[in-house]
Amino acid sequence: MDLKSINLADKFSRFNEHWSPRVIAEMNDYQFKLVKVQGEFVWHRHDDTDEVFIVIDGELTLRFRDGEVLLRPGEMYVVPKGVEHQPVAERECRMMLVEPRGVVNTGDAGGGLTAKNDVWV
Amino acid sequence: MDLKSINLADKFSRFNEHWSPRVIAEMNDYQFKLVKVQGEFVWHRHDDTDEVFIVIDGELTLRFRDGEVLLRPGEMYVVPKGVEHQPVAERECRMMLVEPRGVVNTGDAGGGLTAKNDVWV
Repeated sequence: MDLKSINLADKFSRFNEHWSPRVIAEMNDYQFKLVKVQGEFVWHRHDDTDEVFIVIDGELTLRFRDGEVLLRPGEMYVVPKGVEHQPVAERECRMMLVEPRGVVNTGDAGGGLTAKNDVWV
Repeated sequence: MDLKSINLADKFSRFNEHWSPRVIAEMNDYQFKLVKVQGEFVWHRHDDTDEVFIVIDGELTLRFRDGEVLLRPGEMYVVPKGVEHQPVAERECRMMLVEPRGVVNTGDAGGGLTAKNDVWV
């Protein structure tokens, strides 16, 4: 057993790409991922799972078809499965995602922003 | 759909009891819980699930039979299922737990520190 804490700031310092989630921990069949984002992501949905966003630094807007939520540091939101959403950050935002192993970042939408899965940092 | 962010500091301000986790969000069949702790908890294990500890404020030591891990704010740890552990905090520590719905805080040990489940804040 690895007796070492997982330090979020240390993990964030190890990558710079935007919209490219890095796995930092697994709990059962769920993953904790860090991601740096800036700009507008693609509209998409995950038909099989809820998805948790926790903002660590910066601000994230989650746009939905019928409204939006602004997340500041220390704030989180659960996007229910099947609900279309578009993450948007005017300036760089650092956040943690929690979702089942295997979830693709662009969900049903695919496209150029689709990131490789299971990349650890 | 509730278009409101979940603010950890606001949620923490709403309760003071130690070792009494409050649910703040659900993702599929998993729960995000906040808890304030101080002192030594009971040694226990969870045979059916891993358990995630994320320290928000203060310091938490996770004692294991063969060592320990110190968690500071912005640090997390995954206690693997079946592994005996004892959370300890000299001063008050505020943390977030992530685990499946239904997990009892004292695991196999039971006793007076066993908290009621599914208490939302």
